Parts: sequence; C-alpha cells; structure tokens
Amino acid sequence: MSPTGGFHPPPEQGGVVWIDVQGLGDEPLLRQLGERFGLHLLALEDLVNAPQRPKIEEYREQVLIITRMARFAGRAELNDEQVGLVLGPGYVLSFQERYGDVLEPVRVRIREGLGPIRSAGADYLAYALLDTIIDGYYPVVEHLGEVLARLEDQILARPGARTLTRLNRVKGVLVALRRGIWPQREALNRLLRDGSRFISPEVRVYLRDTHDHAAQLVDVVDSHREMVAGLLNTYLSALSNRTNEVMKLLTIMASIFIPLTFMAGVYGMNFEAMPELHSPWGYPALMAVMVLTAVGMLFYFRRRGWLGEPPDDDDSDDES
Amino acid sequence: MSPTGGFHPPPEQGGVVWIDVQGLGDEPLLRQLGERFGLHLLALEDLVNAPQRPKIEEYREQVLIITRMARFAGRAELNDEQVGLVLGPGYVLSFQERYGDVLEPVRVRIREGLGPIRSAGADYLAYALLDTIIDGYYPVVEHLGEVLARLEDQILARPGARTLTRLNRVKGVLVALRRGIWPQREALNRLLRDGSRFISPEVRVYLRDTHDHAAQLVDVVDSHREMVAGLLNTYLSALSNRTNEVMKLLTIMASIFIPLTFMAGVYGMNFEAMPELHSPWGYPALMAVMVLTAVGMLFYFRRRGWLGEPPDDDDSDDES
Amino acid sequence: MSPTGGFHPPPEQGGVVWIDVQGLGDEPLLRQLGERFGLHLLALEDLVNAPQRPKIEEYREQVLIITRMARFAGRAELNDEQVGLVLGPGYVLSFQERYGDVLEPVRVRIREGLGPIRSAGADYLAYALLDTIIDGYYPVVEHLGEVLARLEDQILARPGARTLTRLNRVKGVLVALRRGIWPQREALNRLLRDGSRFISPEVRVYLRDTHDHAAQLVDVVDSHREMVAGLLNTYLSALSNRTNEVMKLLTIMASIFIPLTFMAGVYGMNFEAMPELHSPWGYPALMAVMVLTAVGMLFYFRRRGWLGEPPDDDDSDDES
Amino acid sequence: MSPTGGFHPPPEQGGVVWIDVQGLGDEPLLRQLGERFGLHLLALEDLVNAPQRPKIEEYREQVLIITRMARFAGRAELNDEQVGLVLGPGYVLSFQERYGDVLEPVRVRIREGLGPIRSAGADYLAYALLDTIIDGYYPVVEHLGEVLARLEDQILARPGARTLTRLNRVKGVLVALRRGIWPQREALNRLLRDGSRFISPEVRVYLRDTHDHAAQLVDVVDSHREMVAGLLNTYLSALSNRTNEVMKLLTIMASIFIPLTFMAGVYGMNFEAMPELHSPWGYPALMAVMVLTAVGMLFYFRRRGWLGEPPDDDDSDDES
Amino acid sequence: MSPTGGFHPPPEQGGVVWIDVQGLGDEPLLRQLGERFGLHLLALEDLVNAPQRPKIEEYREQVLIITRMARFAGRAELNDEQVGLVLGPGYVLSFQERYGDVLEPVRVRIREGLGPIRSAGADYLAYALLDTIIDGYYPVVEHLGEVLARLEDQILARPGARTLTRLNRVKGVLVALRRGIWPQREALNRLLRDGSRFISPEVRVYLRDTHDHAAQLVDVVDSHREMVAGLLNTYLSALSNRTNEVMKLLTIMASIFIPLTFMAGVYGMNFEAMPELHSPWGYPALMAVMVLTAVGMLFYFRRRGWLGEPPDDDDSDDES
Repeated sequence: MSPTGGFHPPPEQGGVVWIDVQGLGDEPLLRQLGERFGLHLLALEDLVNAPQRPKIEEYREQVLIITRMARFAGRAELNDEQVGLVLGPGYVLSFQERYGDVLEPVRVRIREGLGPIRSAGADYLAYALLDTIIDGYYPVVEHLGEVLARLEDQILARPGARTLTRLNRVKGVLVALRRGIWPQREALNRLLRDGSRFISPEVRVYLRDTHDHAAQLVDVVDSHREMVAGLLNTYLSALSNRTNEVMKLLTIMASIFIPLTFMAGVYGMNFEAMPELHSPWGYPALMAVMVLTAVGMLFYFRRRGWLGEPPDDDDSDDES
Repeated sequence: MSPTGGFHPPPEQGGVVWIDVQGLGDEPLLRQLGERFGLHLLALEDLVNAPQRPKIEEYREQVLIITRMARFAGRAELNDEQVGLVLGPGYVLSFQERYGDVLEPVRVRIREGLGPIRSAGADYLAYALLDTIIDGYYPVVEHLGEVLARLEDQILARPGARTLTRLNRVKGVLVALRRGIWPQREALNRLLRDGSRFISPEVRVYLRDTHDHAAQLVDVVDSHREMVAGLLNTYLSALSNRTNEVMKLLTIMASIFIPLTFMAGVYGMNFEAMPELHSPWGYPALMAVMVLTAVGMLFYFRRRGWLGEPPDDDDSDDES
Repeated sequence: MSPTGGFHPPPEQGGVVWIDVQGLGDEPLLRQLGERFGLHLLALEDLVNAPQRPKIEEYREQVLIITRMARFAGRAELNDEQVGLVLGPGYVLSFQERYGDVLEPVRVRIREGLGPIRSAGADYLAYALLDTIIDGYYPVVEHLGEVLARLEDQILARPGARTLTRLNRVKGVLVALRRGIWPQREALNRLLRDGSRFISPEVRVYLRDTHDHAAQLVDVVDSHREMVAGLLNTYLSALSNRTNEVMKLLTIMASIFIPLTFMAGVYGMNFEAMPELHSPWGYPALMAVMVLTAVGMLFYFRRRGWLGEPPDDDDSDDES
Repeated sequence: MSPTGGFHPPPEQGGVVWIDVQGLGDEPLLRQLGERFGLHLLALEDLVNAPQRPKIEEYREQVLIITRMARFAGRAELNDEQVGLVLGPGYVLSFQERYGDVLEPVRVRIREGLGPIRSAGADYLAYALLDTIIDGYYPVVEHLGEVLARLEDQILARPGARTLTRLNRVKGVLVALRRGIWPQREALNRLLRDGSRFISPEVRVYLRDTHDHAAQLVDVVDSHREMVAGLLNTYLSALSNRTNEVMKLLTIMASIFIPLTFMAGVYGMNFEAMPELHSPWGYPALMAVMVLTAVGMLFYFRRRGWLGEPPDDDDSDDES
Repeated sequence: MSPTGGFHPPPEQGGVVWIDVQGLGDEPLLRQLGERFGLHLLALEDLVNAPQRPKIEEYREQVLIITRMARFAGRAELNDEQVGLVLGPGYVLSFQERYGDVLEPVRVRIREGLGPIRSAGADYLAYALLDTIIDGYYPVVEHLGEVLARLEDQILARPGARTLTRLNRVKGVLVALRRGIWPQREALNRLLRDGSRFISPEVRVYLRDTHDHAAQLVDVVDSHREMVAGLLNTYLSALSNRTNEVMKLLTIMASIFIPLTFMAGVYGMNFEAMPELHSPWGYPALMAVMVLTAVGMLFYFRRRGWLGEPPDDDDSDDES
C-alpha cells in the first residue's frame, strides 16, 4: 500500500486521489480504508475476497469495478489475478491481489503527462486503469495463438498423449480467459447502456473503446477455441493414421511371406512320390516362383500406394 | 419442526419470526401452519412436494422462494435437497426436505449477533438463508474439480470402462448442479430487475451479491463440463493408443519372425539338388543371415520409434 | 362426443359447460359445434387437423389452446396425441384426437368435488385440463429415465448394434417430447406475461404453477438427452475396448507361437552339418528353451496386464 | 407473364389485381412494371436478383415479401426457388424465378370461389400465396423423413462410403431448408409483432397461422437434423463393428492353426534322438492332441460369443 | 492519399467531399487530417490501429464506421484488411490499411454517373462504399464453396493428413470470415434500429439492403461450416474404411494360407509310421484337399462381400 500514513478524505476542489493497494492481507488497514471512503460492507468484501466474478456495481457513493487481469506464469499456465477498482467523486481506489507492477503503464502516463490523464477527472483515471487491464490480455491471447501453431506442427509430426494433454491445457486456459473477459464485456456493456452518475459523457466514449477491445478479445478467444477443436480432430486422425501404417506393414510382411512359407512347407513334406523333388530343376524353379510371387505382391502393394510415400502427398498441382 | 406448540401470528411491532420446518411428512401440522400464515394452496404444495424447480414467486401476502441445496453423499453422488422459504411481513418460514443442520451457520450468526442480522428485518434473514444455501454449493463444486483432476491422472495412466463410467457420473452430477443453480440465478435476476414489495433496497444490494455468487457457480460448473469433454477426448485417444501398442507388438513379432521362419522352411525342403545343404558353411551362413535380418528389422523399428519410449515423450526442451 | 343432442348456448348466469369431443372424424358435427360457439374458421381447423404445434391463441370470443399429450405405447414408442381446448365465457370445449380416458382425473375431481373445481369458473376448468395434460408427461419422462438406466447396464455388459438402435430410439423420443413440451411452456409463458381477458388473476397463479411444471419437464428431458450423449460415448468406447481384447488375444497367441515355430523350423532344416541334431541332448534342450520362451512371453503379458482382469478394475481403494 | 398488354393502375373501388410474373429475364418489362406500380429500385432489385434472403420489408407504398419455395428435383436434390410478392393497396404482384405452376392452388381457389378469397382484399390474396408457399415445404420435409428412415435401414445392413455421402447430402438439404424457412418465420413474426398498414387485423389472424406452420417446419427440420446426427453415430459404430468382425475371424483362424502348425513343426525336426518318432502311436496320438486343441479353442471362442450370432441379438425377453 | 495538398473544410452548400487514404503509415498527415475534420482522438486511433472489431460508432460530429474487407491471397489464405469510414456533414473519409483498388467500383459509379450517387448526399456515398465492401465477400465465400466441393472429392478418393490440414484451414478461414461479417451485420442492425442524425431515411432503406446482404453472408458461411463438419466425419470414416480394407486383405491372406501351411507341416513330420507318405496317391490327394480348402475360403469371403466391389456400391436401383 503506497501511502502508509492516515488517509485524508478526498479533496473536493480539484485533483484526483488514487490509492493503490497491493496484496489483500492487512485486514485492519483495509477496514480503515473502507470506513474512510464510506465503502459498503459488501463492496469491501468483494474487493478483498479474491476470486469474484468480474462486474460493475453502482453503490450510493461509489462505483465498484471488479476485474480480472491475466498474465502468463511459465508455459501454458495462466496466472489471473483480481483487480478491484472503486470510483468515487474525486478519488479512485485500486486493490490488487498480489504485489506487482501491472498498473505501471498508468503511473508512467501520469508522471509523463501523456494524454488528458492529469487534467481529467477520476472517471478518466478509472478508465485508464480498466484499459490497461484489458490491454494486458492481448499478449496472453497472442501467445496462446503461437502455442497453438506450435502444437499443430507437433500433432502432424508426432502425435502423442503429451500433445493431447497440452492441447487440453491450452483449452482450459482459453476457457478460463473467456470466463474472465466475458463478464467484463457484459459489465461494460451494461454500464454503457444504463450510464452512471460517476462517469461523464466524455469518458463514456473512452469506455466504449474499452468495451470494443473486450469484445474483440472474446472473438479471438472463441476462434482459438475453434482451432483447438480442429486440432483435436487432427490429433485423432493422426492416431488413426498411425495405426493404419502399423497395420499396413504387418499386412505387407504377412502377405508376402505367408504364401512363400507355404510353398516351402509343401516341398518339406516327406511323401515318397513327389517327382519335383528328384528333378535337378525343381529347386531353382521353385525359387523363381517364390521371387515372382514376392515381386507380384510388392507390385500390387505399390499400385495401391502402400509403399513409399502415400499418393495424396504429391498433389501439388491442384492449386486453387 | 422446532416450535411444536401453537403458532402465534407474526408480531408487527418489530422483531422477526423464523420458523424452520425439517422434514415434510407431518401434513396436518403443515396445513395448520399454512392457514396461520395465509399461504396460498399452490405455495404450500410447492413447499411440500419436494422436487420443484427453483423459483421465486410473489404471492399477495408473501414471497415464495424454492431453492435447492447440494451436499455430497459419498463419492460422486450428489445429494440435493429442496429448501423452501416463505418471506412475509415480519416472518420467514423455511421448509427443509430432510432433517439436517444446513442452516446452522445462520443460527450461529443470530446467536452471536454477527453482522446486521439481529437488527435487520425479515428480508435480511431471508437473504442470509439464501446466501447460506448458495454458498453450500462451493465445496461441492470444488470437490468435483478435485475429482476431475484425479480422473485426468487415472485416464492417462490406465484408461478403462470404470474410468469412463466415473467420468459420466461426474458429468451427470454437473448437469444436475447446473439444473439446480441456473434457475436460482434466473430467479434472483428477475427479483433484482423487477423488485418486490417485501424486499427493501438495502437488502437488494445483498441479494445482488448472492446473484453474483450463483452466476459464478454457473461459470465454474460450465468450465468443469468443458473439462469433462476434454477428458473424454483424452480417454478415447488413450484407448486408441493402447490398441496401437498392441498392434505394434504384434507387427514387430510377426515382421521379425515371419521372414526367418520362411528361410528355415526353405532349407527344410527335401529337394535332392540343393547344394547349400551339403556345404559345411551352409548352416552357419544361414544363421548369420537370419541374425542380420532380425537386427535389421529391430533397427528399422527403433528408427521409427516403435521400441522403447515413444519419441514424443522426451521433448522437454520445447519450453514456451 | 358425450352430448349427442343439440347444443345449448353456454349459460351466462353461472355454471360452466364442458363439452369433450373424442375423435375428430365427424366433420358436420364439428362444424355445427363451431358455428354454435362462434369459433373462428382457423381455430376450428387447428383443432381438427391433428399435428399442430402447441400454442395458445387469443381470438375475439375465445382462447384457443392446442396441447400435445404423451403416452407410452409399448416399449420406447411414444404415442402423442393432440388435445385442443377452447376457453370462452362460461364454457370449455376439449377436442381429443383419439378416444380415451386421459381427462378422466378431471372428471373425477368434478364428480367428487375435490378442490375449487365445482365453484370456480371456466378458466379454472381449463387450467385443470391443462394441468392434467402436462402432468401426464411425468410418468413418460420417468419411464425413459429407467430405460436409460437399463441401457447403461446393457452397454457395459454387451454392446451391440441393437443397443445403439435402442439408444437412438430413446433419443428420438426425447426429441419428440421436447418438441411437444417446449412450445407449451413458451405459450404458457406468453400467456402469463401478456395476460388474457378470459383468465382471472386467481387462475393465473395456478397457470404459473403449470408453467413451472412444463419448465421442469424441459429440464429433465434435457438432462436425459445429456445422458444419452454420455451413453453413446460409453458405447463407442466399449466397442473400441472389445476390438482391443480381440487384438490382444491375437497378439498373445502370435507372439508366443511364432518364435517357437521358427525354432522348430530351424531344426527341421536338412543341412548335413548341424551338430545339434546328432547330440542326444539336442531335443530336450530345445524343448526347454521353447518352454522358457513361452513362459517368458506369458510373464511379460501378465506384467502388462493383458492376461486375466485388467488392472483398472480393482482400484476399489481410491475412495473419494 | 400472364397479362402481356399494357398494365392499368390498380382499381381503387374494389377488386384485387394479381399480376404473376414467371421467369425474371425480360428486364424492360420488369422495369416498366416497377414504374407503373411505383416500386422502389431496391425492391425491384431484390425481386429480380434471385438468391435473396427471405424477408418482409415495408416500403412507402408497398410491402415487399421475399420468400423461398422448395421442391424436390430427383433424389435428395433440393430445388429451391425465390418467389417475391409485392402487396400494395388493391394489388398483389408475384415474381417467380422459373416458370411453373406452384401457385396453381391459389388460382384454383379463386376460380372455384373457395373460402373468402374472392371477397377479401389484396392482403388476403397475399396471405393465400404465402400460405401456399409455406405449405409446399411439407411434402419436401416428409419425403426427407422417409429418406432418413431408408438410410437407417441401409446403415444397419451394409454401411459404406456411399451411405455416408447420402447422409451428408440429406444433412445439406436440411441445412438449406432451415436456411429457407427460418428467416420466413422470423419475418412473419416481426410482421405480426409490429403490424403493417397493408394488412388488416382479420388477415393478421390468418398470417399467425402461417407463422405457426413455419415454426412447426423449423421444429421438424431440427428433429430431422438430430436424426441425421444419430445415424452418423450408428454409421461410425457399424464401421467399427465391421472391423471387429474381420479381426475376430483373423484371430480365430490364427489362434486355432498357429499352435497346431507349431506342433507339426516340432515333429518335423531332424533330431536323431526323438523317441516319439519311432513309436507307432506317435502319429495318431499327436493327431488326437491337435484335434483336442482345435476343439478347445473353438469351445473357448464359442463361450465368448465370437462364433455364430452375437449374444446381444437374442435378448428379445427384456421387454420394457 | 489522393489529394496530397492542404485539405479544405467540407463545403456546406452542396457536393460531397470524399478523401480516400490508402496505407496508414504517414502519421503526421493523418493527424493533420484528423484535426481538420475534428475527429475524436479515439476515432482516429481506431482508424489507424488496424485490427479493430467492425463497428459503427456515433461521435458528436461524425459517424465512424470500421469495416473489414476480405480478399483471397492465393489458395485458402484469407487476406482481410480494415477499411474505416468517417461520415460527416458533406464529407466521407475512407482509410484503407493497404494500397489497392478495392473501392474502384464506387469511383467508376461516380465517374460514369451510375445511380443517384452524384446527386445524393454524403450518406449515400458512405452506403455505396459499405455496399462495395460487403459485396466483396461474395466471391470469397463462393470460392470457399468450390474449395469445399473439391475437398469432398479428394476425401472420398484419397483421404490423407494433407486433406485434413486443408479442411482445417478452410474452417479457419470460415471462422475468420464470420468474425469479420457478424459484427458488421450487428452494427448495421443497431444503426437501422436506433437511426442516426447523419443518415437520411432514404439512405436507411439502402442500408437495410446492405444489412440483408451481410445477414445472407452469415447464413452461407454457417452452412459452409456445417459442410466442413460433415466432411470431417466423411474423412474419419474414410480413414476407418481404409484400415478396414487393410485388415481384410490380411485376414484373407492369413485365413487361406494358415490352414494350408498347417497341412504341409503335418506331412513334413518325421514319424516313421505315417501310411499316407508311402501311398502314391498321398501327394496328389493332399494337393486336391489344399485347393478345395483355398477355394472354399475364397467362396466364403466372396459371399461376405470382401472380394471385389463391396456390395453397397451397386445399389443404383433404390431410386427415391
């Protein structure tokens, strides 16, 4: 919590107070803050009890905005964190679940005076925070797109149980992302439709932009999910293809050698009256027949496309 | 039924009467209760005939709230029970299908005076009961999440018909949960939108919170269901993989020994004119050829990754 | 048609006329009835031409209610029948597609004076008829639930083409049921929302109850359909398991005997210089090697769990 | 185009003018017609450019109704054709894509004076045309139901690639039908909700009936699509069953003969010291062992139900 | 950017100014343009930052229209490009992501004075641009339909991993197309419903037409997606069929030769007491038995339809 001393009531005559709380463990401090700014008990509970559904709720003296922020923690592990905002007349309170610098871009904009952030009101600051949070989803979603592209290559090259597990993990992350973004979009939509005393028409135009970004994110997440479904089909068919190849090898080996072994078996019989056995051409003639049989089988398999490259791999001529 | 004596009409001048009925078998008593509080015949029927759809209905002198409460009975067996509430001016009646202490947390809050429950009106008591009921879903849903995580491990390790049966059972429980929570969410939504004479604006803010919890539960149940669908795909592909392994063993055995057996068969033939049979090097030379053939096949299978660990299991280097 | 004589116009000063038409073949009579009660031509057509979509339509002098009633005819064969109601001031006409006693419960209630049916108006009678019709779905839906439970057992025990056909038939019945109940629910919903001159506020409360029952039926039918989808997956995986078992037996037989046959083939060769053949220990030694090989293979298969019970069937210890 | 001479403006004092244009090639004539009746340029374009989405649009002086009519052209080939209607005060224009007699039923009704068509206004004529078009879907949908029933039999008897292709074609036709009917239903719904200056309340009652028919068609098409999905599962499982049968035959043949061949191989060995070879009972004893082995295997396969009829085919006793 | 000199404020007294910006790199120029026309900062950002969600937004002095235009780049590669329009009183600004002539048809219409484009206002010009953009989707969607038809043939002829990859790519393009068209349809719908100060009632009628085209495109894309799903099933079943054929060949070869090899093995045994070996008819008799066995097996396989054409391919008689 940046200002550690006693809080002053928000100034009425201009300027905007922003208090940023990082980590939600220090309960007495949070309660003191809640009292100072007249937060409703339920609002304070929503801010502090971390996994809440994103929403925007109007209270008598503030708007409570519960959002969810996404960051990647390693591979395909999503690290999402709740960020709660309270927008009141002349002040914004932000409550982050963990210590971190995710709102740093806003601080930079304030420090360097970029855009209207220094001259505008508390509602613009709230918008800037919301926008930063929503924008934080873009790298996550793009990263997932790259992971999916990599998984597609892996599935075609060597499908295995681990690839499927990864695909399912990506799908789980996408479901979690959608679960995070969708209610934010809905909440922004309702805010835009019904309006609020705490948000000026000028800032509403900006919030509409944030809403569009959220909607776009939902779209991208949904088409990523379609891609996951497509990859699943590719995976299942790759498995099926692999079984097919194993079967083909078995069938080729068996089909070639089983007749030959039979022929050898015939001339291994001990009948007394087998004239072929006594002919000097018997052995070379049988050998010739065996070779011809094997070559014939190979030719047959080749014509069916079971040997070498499958025939559907060199159709580079059917350009569209 | 806690108060077994005669009922007194609810006091008008303050205080809230709460009558908690556990078990719905004592019909005359229930009818007497219905008459005393002027319950509509249909409301009484809904309260008593247990598997009703959760709903909130406004009657002339009361609001009828039918909810469903979830508890686990053993493994993945859901034990859901109807709890009906009647909220009238100055009184709340609750009807539980079975004896049990599920509303105990509310009693504790009353006894110990936690929160505004002792000073607030009947509507706040109804909210507290509703909130307790909805909160009761959280451990169930979390437990299901753990069951799913365990099932995922089992499916990867040893997929079998029982795992699938269990997966289907979990899916059934999720469907039942959604069927229980969804209409409660809808009913709360309608109540918040249309309002009610029996609920003060202060309590509406609290009910909005309960509605958010119900919505969050629906979200979690839905993503659990997505997870079940993903596990189903994993299961089917694990089955397919297992067949593949059986096939691979058969193909390896057959491909190695079938050519060798053929060679042995050739030199088991009884032709008189087979010069190899008379050479002292014939036998060791054929043995050498056989060993070379077998080693060649093994080498081929090893290169295709059919022996030992499959090649897609040691790709620990493609960190994202 | 119960009253075969001339119809009298409905009395205005009290009492309710109910005319129940069973079988829709006697066209002149129906037309006469339509004229007497001033039915719109389209209403009469909807009543008489049997497979109409369930709906509630307001005409100038009546409300037309087209419903569908479900009964089981034998196994999983659904027998659904249209029942049309016309509610006017002081009278109710009911048109059943076939002769039958499905509205008998209402007659019993009238005869025995149960509930307010004798004192209430025509709208209550219409409600009672509607309620009886909707309640008639419950045994059908419950029966389907039992059929599904039985099918689940069959699928696990011995999956076959007939089981699948039955599953598809149950699915078809569920689709047909939903097609019957859903529009009734919708129609009741619209009636409750928009109201009607012909239905008093008292009866609306009753109709709300009927609407809830229809909604609950839709819920149950939907979860039955989810169950069918789950059973389908079980069925497909049972098929896959069966193929797997066949493959396993083949692989075990082949893997054990193919190497043995090869060894026998080797010592069946006719090379002159095979010292083993002349040793007195040659034959017993080879026999010992063969037995060891077979036992080794069996041991390997046992360790992989291919013999006897599969290893995932005795995991009774992982209680949750 | 029926009247080939000059057009007269529609009479105001009674009577209805209906101009039916068949084939959309004669552009100057169409333009002339458009000018005479004051058609908006866009309306004319929609009427003439054939594949438009079905819709009902209000213009200043007319209502434009674009519908789609379905007819079967051979097997499962859908022949759908656009029919545009223009309803103005006292006149109806109809534009058919191709020559044909699809609106003949309406002409018959006019000629023979059936129903109120001769005395009613232009709106009733438009309704009659619309109703005829929607009714034309019924035989198509029923025919598809029969095709599906036939396909079900084929799939169970002999599943093949052609059956699947046909199933997909039927599915495509169902999608096309839904694409044709759904917007008509929507358009009618909007027309009923918002009303129109050109349609009298009397005719609205009739249009409500047409809307119900469209809704019913959508229902039937949807349950046909569910049936297609069910058949697809049946087909895939039939394929799987067929592979299973092939596998079973292979396994039976191999399991019976591989051990026998091994035994024969053993006594084909050339060891000097094999006492069995010299015993006169050696040969018949081995033969007996072979027969016993084969019979034992057959018995084992019979007990597992792999021979003759599968055991799940004679469960005619589990009546429901 | 066509006019490179200084911009003049849009004339108020008639005529329409259209400024077409191609390529979004020249930031100072764009900013200058924004200032001259009083564009809101967010509007300018939406125009310049290319992948925005299609939308229509009302600002104080303009309407901002963000659309997406589709073109094919080679095979099944979609090249979609953002086109932003700004419609103000008396002027239209268009911003294209890349250089290109996609708006050329509008220029032709202006140059050649086709339609009311020269006499109408800025709103009509904006409509003409929007209409050209939406119409640009039609060739893309039709091309995809042809690609799908070709893929269907390929899947039936020779299913392979590449066919599946292509199918998935087409599916991805369809998802991207839907993602592009759907929000445009929604935006047009909202514009039509809520109206706008900048669009006259005459032009609204035209925009309704554009909306219908967008809706039709969504329909076609959706039925293409259904077709992709159907092809996927065909593909999986073709794979299954192929495995089946491989299995059948293996089973036929093994079933014929395994019994024959066994027989040969029997008479290769070295028992002293085998009377058949000494008979002169032993050898020809065994040969005859072998031939009979082989012919019997072939006959059996033929009767089961495993040889030659499968029986379900010559059912040309079941015409519908």
